[in-house]
Amino acid sequence: MDQHAQEKMRRKPILPQTLSIMASLHPFDPITPGEIQLAVSVLESAFSGSKLRYKRIDLQEPAKHEVVPFLEAERRGEVRPLKPARLLMALFHRLDNGSFFKALINADTKTIVSAKELPKDVQGPLDVDEMMEIEELCLSHPAVKAEIEKLKLPAGHTVCLDPWIYGTEDAKETRRLFQCYMYIVATDHPQNNQYSLPCKFSPVFDGITRQLVRMDYLPGGANTQSTETQPWKPVPTVQYAHDLLDEPLRTDLKPYIVQQPEGASFNVIGNAVSWQKWRFRVGFNNREGLVLHNVTYDGRNTFYRLSFSEMTVPYADPRAPYHRKQAFDVGDVGFGITANQLSLGCDCLGHIKYFDGYRTDAQGEPIQLKNVICMHEQDNGLQHKHTNYRTGAATVVRNRQLVVQMICTVANYEYIFAFILDQAANIELEVRATGILSTVPFDNQNGETVPWGTNVGPDVMAPFHQHMFSLRIDPAIDGYKNTVYYEDSVPMPEDDSNPWLVGYTTEKNIIKSSGSATTSVDRHRVFKIRNDSIVNPITHHPIAYKLQTMPSQMLLAHPNSFGSKRARFATRPIWVTKYQDDELFAAGEFTNQSKKSEGVEVWASRNDTVENEDVVLWHTFGLTHNPRIEDFPVMPMERVSVMLKPDGFFTKNPALDVPASSQSFNQSTLHPEPACCAGPQEKVQVKL
Amino acid sequence: MDQHAQEKMRRKPILPQTLSIMASLHPFDPITPGEIQLAVSVLESAFSGSKLRYKRIDLQEPAKHEVVPFLEAERRGEVRPLKPARLLMALFHRLDNGSFFKALINADTKTIVSAKELPKDVQGPLDVDEMMEIEELCLSHPAVKAEIEKLKLPAGHTVCLDPWIYGTEDAKETRRLFQCYMYIVATDHPQNNQYSLPCKFSPVFDGITRQLVRMDYLPGGANTQSTETQPWKPVPTVQYAHDLLDEPLRTDLKPYIVQQPEGASFNVIGNAVSWQKWRFRVGFNNREGLVLHNVTYDGRNTFYRLSFSEMTVPYADPRAPYHRKQAFDVGDVGFGITANQLSLGCDCLGHIKYFDGYRTDAQGEPIQLKNVICMHEQDNGLQHKHTNYRTGAATVVRNRQLVVQMICTVANYEYIFAFILDQAANIELEVRATGILSTVPFDNQNGETVPWGTNVGPDVMAPFHQHMFSLRIDPAIDGYKNTVYYEDSVPMPEDDSNPWLVGYTTEKNIIKSSGSATTSVDRHRVFKIRNDSIVNPITHHPIAYKLQTMPSQMLLAHPNSFGSKRARFATRPIWVTKYQDDELFAAGEFTNQSKKSEGVEVWASRNDTVENEDVVLWHTFGLTHNPRIEDFPVMPMERVSVMLKPDGFFTKNPALDVPASSQSFNQSTLHPEPACCAGPQEKVQVKL
Repeated sequence: MDQHAQEKMRRKPILPQTLSIMASLHPFDPITPGEIQLAVSVLESAFSGSKLRYKRIDLQEPAKHEVVPFLEAERRGEVRPLKPARLLMALFHRLDNGSFFKALINADTKTIVSAKELPKDVQGPLDVDEMMEIEELCLSHPAVKAEIEKLKLPAGHTVCLDPWIYGTEDAKETRRLFQCYMYIVATDHPQNNQYSLPCKFSPVFDGITRQLVRMDYLPGGANTQSTETQPWKPVPTVQYAHDLLDEPLRTDLKPYIVQQPEGASFNVIGNAVSWQKWRFRVGFNNREGLVLHNVTYDGRNTFYRLSFSEMTVPYADPRAPYHRKQAFDVGDVGFGITANQLSLGCDCLGHIKYFDGYRTDAQGEPIQLKNVICMHEQDNGLQHKHTNYRTGAATVVRNRQLVVQMICTVANYEYIFAFILDQAANIELEVRATGILSTVPFDNQNGETVPWGTNVGPDVMAPFHQHMFSLRIDPAIDGYKNTVYYEDSVPMPEDDSNPWLVGYTTEKNIIKSSGSATTSVDRHRVFKIRNDSIVNPITHHPIAYKLQTMPSQMLLAHPNSFGSKRARFATRPIWVTKYQDDELFAAGEFTNQSKKSEGVEVWASRNDTVENEDVVLWHTFGLTHNPRIEDFPVMPMERVSVMLKPDGFFTKNPALDVPASSQSFNQSTLHPEPACCAGPQEKVQVKL
Repeated sequence: MDQHAQEKMRRKPILPQTLSIMASLHPFDPITPGEIQLAVSVLESAFSGSKLRYKRIDLQEPAKHEVVPFLEAERRGEVRPLKPARLLMALFHRLDNGSFFKALINADTKTIVSAKELPKDVQGPLDVDEMMEIEELCLSHPAVKAEIEKLKLPAGHTVCLDPWIYGTEDAKETRRLFQCYMYIVATDHPQNNQYSLPCKFSPVFDGITRQLVRMDYLPGGANTQSTETQPWKPVPTVQYAHDLLDEPLRTDLKPYIVQQPEGASFNVIGNAVSWQKWRFRVGFNNREGLVLHNVTYDGRNTFYRLSFSEMTVPYADPRAPYHRKQAFDVGDVGFGITANQLSLGCDCLGHIKYFDGYRTDAQGEPIQLKNVICMHEQDNGLQHKHTNYRTGAATVVRNRQLVVQMICTVANYEYIFAFILDQAANIELEVRATGILSTVPFDNQNGETVPWGTNVGPDVMAPFHQHMFSLRIDPAIDGYKNTVYYEDSVPMPEDDSNPWLVGYTTEKNIIKSSGSATTSVDRHRVFKIRNDSIVNPITHHPIAYKLQTMPSQMLLAHPNSFGSKRARFATRPIWVTKYQDDELFAAGEFTNQSKKSEGVEVWASRNDTVENEDVVLWHTFGLTHNPRIEDFPVMPMERVSVMLKPDGFFTKNPALDVPASSQSFNQSTLHPEPACCAGPQEKVQVKL
């Protein structure tokens, strides 16, 4: 996580200029370093008797009813009303008594709005400093050193660890615990793949008392039996670093350069982006990372807020301690703080705009998260084509897209999140899964296998797992009162209306009360969000956007397991709730070591009226990931995506006015046909 | 269809040089113009008593058992055995007695292998000359002229038609029929959209006798009632041509140029392609168009043949004559003969290689189908990434792909087919649907709607329909004997093996006898093709490729309808058959006006042993397409895709040796930050 260029700023008094800048911030602008300093200053005054350790300081987004009049005035180009107060949220520990607090600070008045001590069993997310501290604590602990000693490692070999979120197996647990998974480092190389050589011991630490709680020993075979630490029997590391490969690199890949000689087609002022007919604001917070706010197309509202609200990765290995292995990468850690510093020419091609973010460190000092969001255009092949066969006239329009992207490294694994907007008013939400599988030791060299994992190298196995994402869609389809319904395609009845038995039609089901729904491939179920008060003049149906879901297997963990209780959002593909401020995270506010989730399933169960109301649509989708050996030592990306598409929102294809694809614009080149290599057909023509 | 640069060649005696070229042809090379001439010459001699009208002359692919030894010698770099005889297939009518023939010609011996008169109820596909003839016949027919007269069209308005494949409603029908759908042409513009103005009369012609069979009148409202032709009440045409739009074109789209200064990374000799570690042959035939033959990766066999074997588009409008509206675009027409002549800089970006094809005309003269296949590389974002958070070292490898593409115009509609190969040994089979909806007249200006279609403009409606594709996968996973099985992810039992109830595992089902199977999202069902005789040394399981299906709604037409009887392939997502030569087309050899299909469902029902055999896997997938108004007047592409991925075929990620993504190679540019527009965060930093 410390890959960022972290410019720690010296703590200083807040200057008047800083305050004037803050006054100019948009309500959706991400937190600024000055605001982090302001929050710390306010809290230090209020808690002057005790030393504070900061876990998170971030923007608290404004109440919707307060900000919408401001947004609407902006959209209409009218005089804007006063902005809502700028609120900041802080999570921190009092070091004098170990209590854990959540506070809201009004940045305009520089006062504390609320400061609440959280219950003992609430664990905040992992933070960067804490992770480093646990690593150091673990490696310097005598009991851990003793285990490493027993490995009798060859010269040049060391041991490192990933401090894992402990997970849950006891409803009474209140300690803050870390399960340390240990790995042998076979070479002192910055891209060494330690996940190829997992150790069979795993210490558990208390993150508050800093005590070793227990030394776990991991099974070596297919059953649960473990043994005391034995000298390591060396096996080769499966490496991905190019200079550690046995084989040479490919030399036949020619350069492929995207040139935008006139620059990009987008305009950016601060975090406000305009591109083609889209306008939106790039949001960023420590928890979700990239968020899109206030998305409009051609001056019409479409979505108030789009984000990846939560995800969970439960593992299928039934054996202790792996039964607790379940990451909530948004709630337990945060995509904002794990977002990569992106590099020009590596993560995207073409003309790139980067956005930065900020977080606090444990001392309350702002840390810059540089280039954590990138934005660029891409060509995605053809958008539409038609050839009039009578005249031979071909109309070809290419599919230019705007990609707003973030790449998060959660220890071993990487997620690439992209919001992709196009010229036909579609928004694609794409996730690519890559990085390194989380592995376990497994003595597999005599043909051993397990039914819940794949051998991916000598003495190493990658257990099956699921990646379950929650996409939170807060719609504003031409206004803030919307209705969600689903539409199934069904055969017409076998009666006089359908004499040749080929007819089919659709069945609509309006979701009138908050709750959940399922996807259905066999019925071609499509979810739509409509505005009941605006009827399309041609279709004669209310204007709408549709959600092209990604039907996925839901959580496989038993409903009675902690794995399932903590992630109820992942048991149903669709949830519909009535909007309430502060209901942003599908598995609830605090997921780390949670006993059960308090999220979307609770809000959906209120039985609120959601017809023609301010609704939120949540889509759970994911990957059941039973690793291939080809996913190791670093995984070719697996791509999943969902789409939001206008459906009766316009009166015709909104991309008709995109200029045609032409060689003068695109400047492609023709592959040369050397005379010696021409195909036989050409030769025949010449000779006849 | 006549958009091709058609260079008709004068009939001439076949020269010795031509014969020597033919001898050098690879068994999978597409038919050459010389071969078309040879076939015609052989047939004209054999049928010298009667004039022949040619419908199709194409390559007859070699028997597998004859060609495999040749391919294997090629693959191993050994001396190649004699090639199998080059066979040609011809479909033609004897004009003296109207009989319809299929003949096979041995091009090496210049002899007829077989010539068979086909049963009276067998209709061959539509051919280009026939389509033009029917159009001309229709427009010049007095009865049609009389109907047009009744429209009392304003000056400058004319009428055109699409001659539709008649479809089926009577098991005894033996005539060759065409349903002509008529449209008003409001402007003499090469990109005029006639589909916006469908007429309410529809003549039916006999394609052999050239007689008008019947004048159908189409319903004007939501019920089946039709009226005599009335004067047209003008409504505006919904146009897509840029110079017919009311609104101006977008002016803010900046150029996006793909440069490959060192050329492409592929090599092409004739139709043999090598790119990265892939080798394959680009095949082309009149029926399927693009085919990939003999696909190997790093010298290992993967697939013997990949093609889009068939597709059907049944419409949901239950009213006559629409109940017969069901296209089989492969069998009824052919993707080869409808493939677009592609243009540099329009259909693809970068460095492009084109391939041509040939067809015969009705007189037996070869017609060049120029640039019907294009091949280029594309960048598809990141292939894999990992950042070692301890060291900050990021490994970034981009996903370079090779795209082999064909775009087919089937009257109103376009399909873009792409075989996409990548560096991690994946093959993606992508279809994009675009073009213009097939519309019907519908008086909708007073709020009328139908439950089986969408109003897409004034007085025009687009009925619901399905696009059902059959992907034919003839595998050769490290050899020609393979086994297909499917694997479901299922919870572990609630017993001692799973004390915390989080475990899950997989269930394998081997397909031992030819038959069909279903997809299952809820069980995360994955289909795999394995080679039972080769075990992966690390996973300890047989090497395999997996098919990442696209689970889709199957055919909605009732099983007793002709719509379903003719397209049994589209009732099940997966079929497995034992390979037999000549079993290529999922709905059978002759689909035009077929009474029932004789395709994959027949071959699958043989109950052949398919375990560790030469198997073929067929995947039906598609789109239930209930049109959006945004799909008109030309449709933003809808993309569907399936993937073939190695799964235990290698011992690690096969793309590890791809060089890293770097700015020196990619030459991206940074979006400038003018001082005036810098975000507030930057200002704060400067001022603190």
